[in-house]
This record gives sequence, C-alpha cells and structure tokens, in this order.
Amino acid sequence: MSDVVGCAVGVDIGGTKTVAALVDAGGGIIGRAVEATPGSDGPDAILATVLRLVRAVADGTRPRGVGVGSAGVIDHRSGVVLSATSVLRDWAGTPVRERLSDMTGLPVRVVNDVHAHALGEAWAGAAAGAESVLMIAVGTGVGASFVRSGEVWFGAHDVAGHLGHIPAAAAEGRPCVCGRTGHLEAVAAGPAICALYAERTGRTVTDVQEIVRCAAAGSAEAAGVLAEGGRALGAAVGGAINLLDPEVVVVGGGVVGAGELWWAPMESALRDQLLPTTAGIRVVRSKLGSDAALAGAARLVLDADRKMKERH
Amino acid sequence: MSDVVGCAVGVDIGGTKTVAALVDAGGGIIGRAVEATPGSDGPDAILATVLRLVRAVADGTRPRGVGVGSAGVIDHRSGVVLSATSVLRDWAGTPVRERLSDMTGLPVRVVNDVHAHALGEAWAGAAAGAESVLMIAVGTGVGASFVRSGEVWFGAHDVAGHLGHIPAAAAEGRPCVCGRTGHLEAVAAGPAICALYAERTGRTVTDVQEIVRCAAAGSAEAAGVLAEGGRALGAAVGGAINLLDPEVVVVGGGVVGAGELWWAPMESALRDQLLPTTAGIRVVRSKLGSDAALAGAARLVLDADRKMKERH
Repeated sequence: MSDVVGCAVGVDIGGTKTVAALVDAGGGIIGRAVEATPGSDGPDAILATVLRLVRAVADGTRPRGVGVGSAGVIDHRSGVVLSATSVLRDWAGTPVRERLSDMTGLPVRVVNDVHAHALGEAWAGAAAGAESVLMIAVGTGVGASFVRSGEVWFGAHDVAGHLGHIPAAAAEGRPCVCGRTGHLEAVAAGPAICALYAERTGRTVTDVQEIVRCAAAGSAEAAGVLAEGGRALGAAVGGAINLLDPEVVVVGGGVVGAGELWWAPMESALRDQLLPTTAGIRVVRSKLGSDAALAGAARLVLDADRKMKERH
Repeated sequence: MSDVVGCAVGVDIGGTKTVAALVDAGGGIIGRAVEATPGSDGPDAILATVLRLVRAVADGTRPRGVGVGSAGVIDHRSGVVLSATSVLRDWAGTPVRERLSDMTGLPVRVVNDVHAHALGEAWAGAAAGAESVLMIAVGTGVGASFVRSGEVWFGAHDVAGHLGHIPAAAAEGRPCVCGRTGHLEAVAAGPAICALYAERTGRTVTDVQEIVRCAAAGSAEAAGVLAEGGRALGAAVGGAINLLDPEVVVVGGGVVGAGELWWAPMESALRDQLLPTTAGIRVVRSKLGSDAALAGAARLVLDADRKMKERH
C-alpha cells in the first residue's frame, strides 16, 4: 500500500480516553480510533487498549512504528513512566516502550503528552516552519514544552516544561498540587479558576465552560475570574519569553476554549512583560487541537527513522 | 611553539575594563592583559584597545582565533552589536566580528558576556562535565544563559537569558530599567538592593559590599535587604529550574560576593520551589570568576575549529 508508506501510528493516552491514529509523512491524520482509558484497571488493561487501537488504525498497513504521548512524567529514552496522576492506577513504573514494542513488533517511542502536542504543532500545526516554539497547555494543569529544530528539550530528569510550578504573584499563599505554595498552576489552571469562582460566589462549578456561560449571562464575577486566570498565565508566559526568546508561542488546552474573555487579558498581560526585541512575537492558538499529540507522537517515530537513514 | 597549538584568545569587553587572555585547549588561562575600556570614546577606540590586548597576549603564538564576550545584546552569527548600555557609546550597530577579523586576520566570534561566562563554567568551571547548565549572573543586572552539550541557546532574536525581566512578586509596582514594572531585576540586581537599602535607611550606598559591611556591623536593615534580594532571585531561579530542568545551576556575578547573608536565603527560596524530581539539583557558585568569560569566549573559536575538522 504505497499510499501509506512512511506512516506511523500516534497514540494519545489521556486520563479519560485513549486515541490512536495513522499519521502520514506530512502530519496528516488518515484514520483514528478511540476508547475510554481503563485507568482504574491498571497498566495491563491500558496497554491492551492501546494495542487494540493500534491494530484498528494500522489495519492492512505497515506503519514504521508507534509513537505514544501519555499523561505523566515519562523517561523519553526508556519509555518508562516516572510518575503519573492517580487516575491512571499503577501507571508509574510501567515500561511502556518495551511492552508495546513486544506487543506490536514495532519500534515504539513514548513521551509526555504536552511534549507530543508541542511536536505536532511545531511540525504540522500552528508553529509549522518555526525554528523554536514554546508550547503552553492550560487545562487541568499548566504545562509547557520547548521545541527547537523539531526536538523537544526534555530536561535532565525529564521534567522540563513544568511552567505550572513557577512562582506567580497572583498565586501567593495558595497551595499547589505539587505541595508547594504560590505556583502559577494554583491560580491559572482550570480547577484553580473554578475554585476562585466558587470562593467568590459560593457556587460550585467543575468546568471553565460553566463560568463562560455565566459571564455571557452577565456575571461580573465570572468574567473577573476568567480574566484573573488569563492574566496570571500571560504574565508568566511573558517572562518565559524573555528568558527563552522562542520564535513562536502556541497556547492550547481546555482553558483556551473559554475564548476572548480569557484570551484577551492573557495576551495583554503577556505583552506587558516583553522586551522591545521580543515585542512582535507571534502568540497563537493551538491549531490541531487534540490531533496535535497524535501527529507529534507519530513524528517521534518517523523522525528516528529519517535520522537513521541519513546516518547510513 | 607546540605548547600553545590549539590555543585561542578570549576577550571580555565590560563597561569599565577590557581583558584578553590566551586560553589553551583545556580551558586554562596562559596569560592575560587588561586595559580600561574607553567606552566614552566610541567603537574605534574600543576595537583598538581589543587589538592591542590580543597582540599582547598572543605574542609569538598562532592562536586559532579570537572569541569575544561583550556587554550588550549581540547577534551571535554576524557578531554585530544589537543593543548596548550607554556606557559603551555607539557600541550598538558595531560589526565587531567583521572589524576584528579584518584587524587581526583571524577567525572571530562574538557573543554576549553572560553567554561567554556560562560557556566557560560549562567547559572548564563549576559545571564541567554537565550536559545542561543554567548560568545565572547577578550584578548590575540579572542575566542567564542556558547551555546544552556545550552550546548556548541564544534565542530567536539573540535575547534569550533575560531572566531579570520575568515578573517577580517582590518587585510588584517597582519600575524596571526595561521600562516595564514588576520585573525581577527591579528587586534582585545590585542597584535594586542598594536602592531598597536607601529607602529603608535614608543612607545612600552604591555597592552591595557596603551593605554587607553594615550587616556585619549589626544592621538588621542591611541583612534584611540582602536576604530580600536573595529570596527574590532564588524564587525566580527555582521556577526556571522547574521549567528547564537543567543538570546544574551556576550562580555568579558581583552580588554573589555578598556571601552567606545573600546566598543562604537565595538557595532556601530556590529549593522551596522545586518539584520532588529536581529537588536534588546542584546549585553552585561560579568557579572561574572573571576568567570564565575569557575561557568561554575562546571556546567558541576552538569549538568551531573542532567542528570543522570533524566535518572534513
């Protein structure tokens, strides 16, 4: 099947669902399959799900390999999960690369999902063609990934990108999920925005979209907490731009779905930090959405393949 | 002269003095020469000074080239000064690489002095052997440089490393030299610490060392402002560690000379930010001091030479 020569399978293992897709050499998604992630059933069940999805999308083709983006901190060399959310029971310690490689007979690469997302946007999405990209993902947490010449900087311990755990003035005194206080995530992540709204109004919400609807209905408190979360994120990202000087910044994740009530204060606070030299930087929304992690994960395998050919 | 085969000249152009040294292939300083920087006399005078110093230290040897670390923002490819402090009159716009290459007949590389310092420490100093190094320089300003595998990340516009221009809670409302407010440099740089001391005591000081002497003499205000400056820097660097996950952090620059009254609160605030995975990170003082920029600048030329040989 010459039309899929050069394809790879990309897999995105999230807390609620797992998606696989066949990805072509240009980053195009040929077909995808989805199942609920059996997180509470443990690693064997998750890997069996991944295997079914890989087989479903690769049906009749010969993919070059399988690239996986997974929630959690992943050793990008060994493909072992170093730590993970409790939603994925016993996921920490799982040698995902080795086990999936045994199960599929294919080369496998595994990275954290934010890195996969960044690779996808840098390759075939909002930052295509840029030499350096800072990707920001704002959802349940606040993560980042710095990509240069198509390569992620994973860090010395595979924890690079924890933008959610830098100090933020607006978060002073607020506890962070990491056990520290005053971190950005404690004021800018989706749950933090919801918590602030509950503090202000006494009304419990579980989703930023509910706050957006309240704001649309005229609630000043709702508009206020969206703006506060946006401003906190923007200020931190503006500082990160002055530190890293990337060519493009891509912002994605569930909270971006809040729209202009969040984006406008975010971008304004971001630009308020910039040095004259970086003032013109492109700050754009994620373009591929949830497909970005699939494309980026597949890219890991296609890229390794390309590099090996260049070497021989 | 076989003992200096593989040597290069490193030059450090600062606001007050310019230093050149012959640097051997292991990063050792063989000989150095110093002159006051004729900053107010303009680029021709500065370059003539550099030429005299290069000739003085290279006397009778055949250096592979000249590496220059200069105050200011430098285009690391062309070696043109993009912007500079007013202390170096008309330095911005000077094509340093081209002019020094014409004057010396040698290959020349030019980078910002903090990057040169970081390269020196990563090569032959406090971070020798580390794969990734975050260098922090705290003096008149607050700068940083991120080095991976011996390569500086200069940024898309050569302004990477402006750690002084990230937002800091302790600096809220304070004007920064860049024109923004609330940046780290406005509370953590040497002049900011002096300004805070003057605000608190009504006593004008021009040097952090004066504050150190006051603290040693029992001034609680003096000890307090040193600790505040240290804590602000430490919190920001702790956040940068969570974002970049370097193997080693090296802290240098004049303010480090304040000693434990500054270092202890700095390191404590830094470690208060860390994720469990990065908690064991090495945070060390600059080892080579002012020699680091000389070694690092020379390394740029030796490195280019080595890479060209590998290619052919």
